[in-house]
Amino acid sequence: MEDLGPFPSRPGYNEATALDQSDPLGSFRELFVNTDPELIYLDGNSLGRMPIAAKEVIRLVVEEQWSDRLIRSWNEGWWELQLRLGDKLAPLVGAKNGEVVISDSTSINLYKLAYAAVRSSKEGRRKIVTDDLNFPTDVYILDGIARELDLELVIVESDGINGPIDPLSKAIDRTTALVSLSHTVFKSGYTYDMAALTSMCHAAGALVLWDLSHSVGAMPIDLNGSGADLAVGCTYKYLNGGPGSPAFLYVRREHQQRLADPISGWWGHEDPFGFGLEWTPTEGIRKFHAGTMPILSLAAIEPGLDHALEATPQAIRHKSEALSNYLIDLSRTALEPRGFSLASPTDQALRGSHVSFAHENAWPITKAMIEVGKMIPDFRNPDNVRIGLSPLYTTFLEVHTAVCRMADLIDSEAYQEFEGASATVT
Amino acid sequence: MEDLGPFPSRPGYNEATALDQSDPLGSFRELFVNTDPELIYLDGNSLGRMPIAAKEVIRLVVEEQWSDRLIRSWNEGWWELQLRLGDKLAPLVGAKNGEVVISDSTSINLYKLAYAAVRSSKEGRRKIVTDDLNFPTDVYILDGIARELDLELVIVESDGINGPIDPLSKAIDRTTALVSLSHTVFKSGYTYDMAALTSMCHAAGALVLWDLSHSVGAMPIDLNGSGADLAVGCTYKYLNGGPGSPAFLYVRREHQQRLADPISGWWGHEDPFGFGLEWTPTEGIRKFHAGTMPILSLAAIEPGLDHALEATPQAIRHKSEALSNYLIDLSRTALEPRGFSLASPTDQALRGSHVSFAHENAWPITKAMIEVGKMIPDFRNPDNVRIGLSPLYTTFLEVHTAVCRMADLIDSEAYQEFEGASATVT
Repeated sequence: MEDLGPFPSRPGYNEATALDQSDPLGSFRELFVNTDPELIYLDGNSLGRMPIAAKEVIRLVVEEQWSDRLIRSWNEGWWELQLRLGDKLAPLVGAKNGEVVISDSTSINLYKLAYAAVRSSKEGRRKIVTDDLNFPTDVYILDGIARELDLELVIVESDGINGPIDPLSKAIDRTTALVSLSHTVFKSGYTYDMAALTSMCHAAGALVLWDLSHSVGAMPIDLNGSGADLAVGCTYKYLNGGPGSPAFLYVRREHQQRLADPISGWWGHEDPFGFGLEWTPTEGIRKFHAGTMPILSLAAIEPGLDHALEATPQAIRHKSEALSNYLIDLSRTALEPRGFSLASPTDQALRGSHVSFAHENAWPITKAMIEVGKMIPDFRNPDNVRIGLSPLYTTFLEVHTAVCRMADLIDSEAYQEFEGASATVT
Repeated sequence: MEDLGPFPSRPGYNEATALDQSDPLGSFRELFVNTDPELIYLDGNSLGRMPIAAKEVIRLVVEEQWSDRLIRSWNEGWWELQLRLGDKLAPLVGAKNGEVVISDSTSINLYKLAYAAVRSSKEGRRKIVTDDLNFPTDVYILDGIARELDLELVIVESDGINGPIDPLSKAIDRTTALVSLSHTVFKSGYTYDMAALTSMCHAAGALVLWDLSHSVGAMPIDLNGSGADLAVGCTYKYLNGGPGSPAFLYVRREHQQRLADPISGWWGHEDPFGFGLEWTPTEGIRKFHAGTMPILSLAAIEPGLDHALEATPQAIRHKSEALSNYLIDLSRTALEPRGFSLASPTDQALRGSHVSFAHENAWPITKAMIEVGKMIPDFRNPDNVRIGLSPLYTTFLEVHTAVCRMADLIDSEAYQEFEGASATVT
C-alpha cells in the first residue's frame, strides 16, 4: 500500500470529483477536525468526527465555567442544558419543544421508557415485540424488563438484512404492550418505515419505542408526524457529539403525564431544591431525567447539533443516498469479484447511511484496512465490513479511493499476513 | 464590603496563618485552578475546584483521542477507562480492585444496586429502611423501588442533625431487605459509624447500601473492613472530578455473582462484541454497567483521584477536622451573636467536612455572601448556610477571612437590601 492518495487513472475518478464539486454540503467537511488527510474514516456511524467548534465549547466549560464560575455555573446555563439541547435536537427527529431531553446513555433511556411503557399498558398485554436486527443492548434491556415483570419478549426473526415486516405484523397483536425496534438497524442499515410500523403497532393498541441511534443526523425523522410514542437515541454517531456523549429520549407529549419513570431521581422532581422527602414528579419531559449530567460531555454535543440543523436533514439524506448508491455501484466491479457481497438493502429507500458487505474474511480485511490501508471501517460479527458514510464530511472521492484501496489491499501480499489473523476482535 | 483581603487585626489571624504554615497539605492548593484569589470558595462539597492537571487530560481526549485517533481510541484505553478509574478510586473507599466501577449518575447507580439488593433478598423481607437525613434523590429512588415491588419504605426520623441510631436499630429487623443511608449526610454533615451501622444491619440479616457522595475524598472510608455490601457515590465533590462527572458504584466481591443489575445493557454482557441476542452477564463489577460512558467527563476524573491518593485520606481527614473545628471555634464569637447556630454535630468524630449553620435569614445571607461578600457557601432549604471545607485547597486563613467577612456583612448596610429577598432559590 504505497500510494495512499486518490486514484485518478481508475474508472469513476472523474465522476467522484464532479460529485464532490456539485455537493451542496461540500463545505461542511471544513467544520470538522481532520488531522490526517490520508486517512479515510468510514466509521462516523460509530464515533463521529469532532466539530472544530466543539473545542471552543469545551474550552468555555473548562476555562470559564468550571475553573472560574464554579458552582455558579449551575444557575448560568448548566441546570437547563439538557433541556435546551433537547429542544435543539427536537427538529432533527420531528419533535416539539418539551418532548426531548438529553439524558444518560441509550441503554439507560431505553430501560426507563420501555419500563414505563409496559407498566402503563392494560392488563392482558403481556408481550414485548422486537426483532433480531435490533442492537443487542436493546434486546438485553427488553429481555431484562420482560423477565422482571413476567412478560414475554418476542424476538421476530428476519433474513438478517431486511426488517421482517410480515412476521412483525403477525407478532404484534392485542396482547402486545410494546414494540421496540431500531429505526435504522446497526448491521445491515435496513431502515423501517416509521409511520407504517407505528400505525401497525397502534392498530393493535401497542405502544412503539424507536431507537434512532443509527438514523438521527443522517436522515429526516418525523416522530410527531408518524405518531411515534417513544424514542431514544445516541448523539455520538451522525450527530458528532463526542465519545460516549449523553443520549436522548423522546416522550410524545400526550404520554408524558401518564408514564412514570421507574428511576425517580431528584432532577425529575417538581421542586428539586425544595429537598422534600416526598416524590412528586414534575410535569413535562424533565420527569424522565434522574440525576446530574456530565457537563463536559453534554456541552460538547451542541456544535454537532448546530451543523446538522444548518445542513438540514433533507440535504443530509440526499447526500447520504448519493454516497451509498455510489459506493454500491463501485462495489459491483471492484469488490464483488473479490468475495464481497452486499449485506444491506439494495433499495436506497430501505437503507440508512451505512452499507455493510459480507465477506468470509471480514475480520482480517477490517484489520488490514485499518493497519495498512489507512481506512477505518467497522467489523460486525461474524462476517460484515460496515462502511459508515457521514454526509457532513465523507466525500465521493473518499468513497472512490476507499474502494480502490480495498481492491488493491485484497490483491496485495501485505493482506496475506492478515488472513491468518484470528476472528477475535482485539 | 470594601476590604476583601484578610483581616490581620482581628482575633485569630495569627493562629490562622500559623496553621496554614504548618499544614502538611498546604502545597496541594497550588494543584487547583484559582482564577480569583479574593473569592473564598466554600462549596467544594457541591462542585470541587478544577485540578490544573485536568486541562491536559481533557486536551488529550479532545486533541488526540477524539480528533485524531477517533474510533481507535476505544481500543486504546476508553473501553477499560471506567474500570481502570474504578480500581484507582477503590483505595479511597477501602475496596479492592474489581469492586468499583465508574458509572452513570449516583441516582442511577443507587437504583441499580438497591433494586438488585431487594430482589436478591429472601421472601418475607419486605422493608427498605432509610432516614430523613438522606439526600432526597436517594429517598425518591428507594420510594420508587418500594412502590414498584410492593415493599415498605421506612424513613426513620432524626432530630434534623444527628443520625437516629436508636430508632434505626428498632426499624431494622428480620423483615428488612435493605438499609440505605448517606455516610455523611448532605445537610448537617453528620457522619455514620459505617462499621457499627453495617454490623447492625447484618445482625438483622439486611444488606446495607451507603451513599458516599459527601464523604469520599474527605476522610478514610473502609467498605471492606466495615463489611459494607454496596455503595454509590459521586466524584464531583471532594474528588474534584468536574461538573456532573460520572458517579461510582461498589459491590462487595462476594455479592457480585448473586446480584443482578436490573438494567441489563451490553457493557455488562459476557461478550459485548459477540452481538449475540441472549443476555449473559459477565462476572465481576462490569456487569453493573449498562451503556457507553461520556468519555470527556469520565477522563477528567483522574487528576482529582490522583491528588486525593497522593494526599492520603488520613491526612485529608486530619486537615478537615482541623478546618471545621477552627471554623466552629471562630463562629462562637463572630457568628452566634449574629443569629447563627451550629446545625452540624459538635463532636468532630460525627461530622464530615462541611459545617452547616442555621439562621432565620439563611437565604438572604447566602445571596449576600455570594453577590457582595465574595464568598460562595451553599444554601440548604429552609434555613441552612452550608460551609464546605475542602482539605486539599481550603486554607485556615480563608476560614478566618470568611468568618470576618460574614460578620461584617451581617452588620453592613449592603446586607439590609438582601434581607427583603424572597426565600426562593433563583
